[in-house]
Amino acid sequence: MTLQQAIERLNAFEEAQQAYRQARTILFLDGATAAPRQSVRGRERTMGYLSGELYRLTVTGENREALETILAHPGEVDAVTLRRAEKQKEELDDMTRIPMEEYVAFERLCTEADAVWHEAKEKSDYPAFAPYLARLIDYQRRFAQRKDNTRAPYDVLLDTYEKGTSMAMLDPFFDLLRRKLTPVILAVKERPAPRTDFLHQSFPVHQQRVFADRLMDMMGIDRSRCAIAETEHPFTDSCSRWDVRITTHYYEHDVASGMYSVIHEGGHALYELGVSEALSFTCLESGSTMGIHESQSRLYENLIGRSLPFCRAVLPVMRDCFPEQLRGVTPEMLYAAVNDARPSLKRTEADELTYGMHVLIRYELEKRMLRGDVTVQELPEAWNELYRSCLGVEVPCDREGILQDSHWSGGAFGYFPSYALGSAYGVQMLRNMERSFDPWPQVERGDLSGVNAWLGERIHRHGCLLRPQEILRDALGGAFDPQVYVDYLTQKFTALYQL
Amino acid sequence: MTLQQAIERLNAFEEAQQAYRQARTILFLDGATAAPRQSVRGRERTMGYLSGELYRLTVTGENREALETILAHPGEVDAVTLRRAEKQKEELDDMTRIPMEEYVAFERLCTEADAVWHEAKEKSDYPAFAPYLARLIDYQRRFAQRKDNTRAPYDVLLDTYEKGTSMAMLDPFFDLLRRKLTPVILAVKERPAPRTDFLHQSFPVHQQRVFADRLMDMMGIDRSRCAIAETEHPFTDSCSRWDVRITTHYYEHDVASGMYSVIHEGGHALYELGVSEALSFTCLESGSTMGIHESQSRLYENLIGRSLPFCRAVLPVMRDCFPEQLRGVTPEMLYAAVNDARPSLKRTEADELTYGMHVLIRYELEKRMLRGDVTVQELPEAWNELYRSCLGVEVPCDREGILQDSHWSGGAFGYFPSYALGSAYGVQMLRNMERSFDPWPQVERGDLSGVNAWLGERIHRHGCLLRPQEILRDALGGAFDPQVYVDYLTQKFTALYQL
Repeated sequence: MTLQQAIERLNAFEEAQQAYRQARTILFLDGATAAPRQSVRGRERTMGYLSGELYRLTVTGENREALETILAHPGEVDAVTLRRAEKQKEELDDMTRIPMEEYVAFERLCTEADAVWHEAKEKSDYPAFAPYLARLIDYQRRFAQRKDNTRAPYDVLLDTYEKGTSMAMLDPFFDLLRRKLTPVILAVKERPAPRTDFLHQSFPVHQQRVFADRLMDMMGIDRSRCAIAETEHPFTDSCSRWDVRITTHYYEHDVASGMYSVIHEGGHALYELGVSEALSFTCLESGSTMGIHESQSRLYENLIGRSLPFCRAVLPVMRDCFPEQLRGVTPEMLYAAVNDARPSLKRTEADELTYGMHVLIRYELEKRMLRGDVTVQELPEAWNELYRSCLGVEVPCDREGILQDSHWSGGAFGYFPSYALGSAYGVQMLRNMERSFDPWPQVERGDLSGVNAWLGERIHRHGCLLRPQEILRDALGGAFDPQVYVDYLTQKFTALYQL
Repeated sequence: MTLQQAIERLNAFEEAQQAYRQARTILFLDGATAAPRQSVRGRERTMGYLSGELYRLTVTGENREALETILAHPGEVDAVTLRRAEKQKEELDDMTRIPMEEYVAFERLCTEADAVWHEAKEKSDYPAFAPYLARLIDYQRRFAQRKDNTRAPYDVLLDTYEKGTSMAMLDPFFDLLRRKLTPVILAVKERPAPRTDFLHQSFPVHQQRVFADRLMDMMGIDRSRCAIAETEHPFTDSCSRWDVRITTHYYEHDVASGMYSVIHEGGHALYELGVSEALSFTCLESGSTMGIHESQSRLYENLIGRSLPFCRAVLPVMRDCFPEQLRGVTPEMLYAAVNDARPSLKRTEADELTYGMHVLIRYELEKRMLRGDVTVQELPEAWNELYRSCLGVEVPCDREGILQDSHWSGGAFGYFPSYALGSAYGVQMLRNMERSFDPWPQVERGDLSGVNAWLGERIHRHGCLLRPQEILRDALGGAFDPQVYVDYLTQKFTALYQL
């Protein structure tokens, strides 16, 4: 195979891969946002079939030869083509280790498990979901072993979501969070709670939808390329920089919930929307690791969204949408309310300070699950016990407990740590950004263009063209240092609660 | 190939076909309801790729052999398998006549043209859409000639949507409508118009959404298998009886528009939802011809939805959703208002009496287009001239004129007559239904279960298992007779307007 033929082969393969991926993305998105409940019967069949086709199309000798040919001529191809070949080769190797029947069966199981989880959560019926969870863990453990049987399965999975992470690196990270933040959490608990009642009046959903559009405008999200839909557990998905979707969930009596989920998902969206056009419709057109992705969502949600300058900017917009409800509320009141930091039940609704503990609990459980130290039957009790010991809260039912997140039902084990890592990356990025310019006067005017441009330049536009370490080095302005995250939280909440 | 192998081959082929079709259905649906505008860039690529795969998978010697093997053993296979083979064989023959490149190019063009049309309609910019229309006509004319070059291309296309129809059959049908209905239309024009002002107050869209849910409940639509979304031009689509989608459009100042589009599409939905479970995930699981499909939607929309008994049933529901707006309105006032019959600009908003004229105009234009008697440049003027001569209305802009419908942008020429035929079929079905039981006391109580059951038994459950003629014979209770339709309209509007 000549180099030219190899490149043509890669192009043709990526065209097909894109089509199957887009079809599956939209089927999943539609299933989670718009489809009627029983549609899962057909979707499961279709998703299974499409992943089989994708497998069949990927794992071929011809693809392998093409990729190896390109990789053998690094000096003769442009950087984009070379990196595409590199990334495709990794995926091909991963996929090749799993037989097609298992790959398809796992995909089908994920589609079904997601539907089962939705219903189980609604009814707080963990036993209905447990057998699916057991099978999902089983598959992932087996896949991990096939990929690398010299490492613990959980290490292999962690590495999938966040290149270079392992339990050896995460144990001290979470240990630091626990040691340094627990005293702050306990101290805050002793202080009087801020007023939050005004956020829990009736906020009609149709008005929250208008508010969400306003928030997306404030964030500078191009709506001709990004849509919003509603779902049980908010997420962002993307087909290309031309087609990004965020999802959210509105609660009539909790306006902050929908608001911060829009800002969080909006952060993910800005990343995908900002990938360079030159990478469009290649395997490099999406964001880098999950940790880097979460650094963007958590940065917009918390570092910007829960800052006093942003509260000053957003309050007039909120008042436009909810004049009655926001009467008499000042920016300082809003700032205090959205930073109400107390141990709670739900990760996605958690304040910045206690958030890390929620992730730590999931990390602990995933370690045990993948080691086989806990059965699926024992999981709810283990979950509840960890919430008791780490956060001092009692879990009233599985709906508010182990069934709250969608990740496990999608077969994702090892994803959660990315949230904590991302939160920590985000703080270090902000500190680095502040060394090049002062974003706060703009933020206070509701103008995020400076922030967007800084992140766009260092992170968004690169997609997967640069390696995660290269992106991080530039964006963090040095090596990763979780102490920066801990310091930020300590200072912020010490000031807020006058500790 | 043994019969057993042939059946297995058919099963495997249909599994794949289902997957590609579901993917394309959902991509289209998502594109029309939820996707951001620029997403078309990726969707067009994906739709093109998937239709290529579907083609490649369909047009194979093995499929042909399998289908011929089954058809050669009619006595040894069950009726479902035999009919599946028959229908697949027809599709295979049709597809085989078109080279794959053309098939894919046409599919891509449709996806692109749909997006161009949406924008052109918004801006009332016909010239932007015209070149796409020209190419679409060109493709369809060529496809028709390949299919059967002994017949006029338009006859071939008509036959695709409504088996057995041709210009020779439709010319006298439309001629009858024109001759018999024009005097009624003119007579109604002389009479004072009913009050309709109360339907044109402000009806907030979020309340119309609640009303739509109530309407779907009244119709007995199973929401666990049927969802509703919003789009520019309402349509119904379906993946299987487990996954049916209707779409609608809400206008703040025209509550009847959204209401009747929900009932119309709901009629289509009931058909798809009612197909026998035994046909699920086979090529027989969808409704029969477009005319029979439209008979269901138009029957619910008009014969039921615009009847006095239904107005009596729906008024309390409307009043629940819009108490202020409906104050003082009586069922008789509502009945008169929703049957306000005067020549107007839009087919989908037209009353029952003038509706046929809108279809006739499109039929006339399609005949000319396919014969090449009119260029795309001349079409708007031809459209406007026909609206002037047939309905006596002046078209103010192309948005309200030639750009109003989505059919042509989807490459569908020859579909429109199905609306008029379906309307006529519907009346004859109702008359036949009335011979077996009196549906009106139930309808007046808001209970459509009797109507649903009668139609379900004779039409819905059969899907494509029976041939269109068989379904029609049973449902109409005899041969098709358009005079029944003309009589119904004449009587209804003579009484309403005291002619």
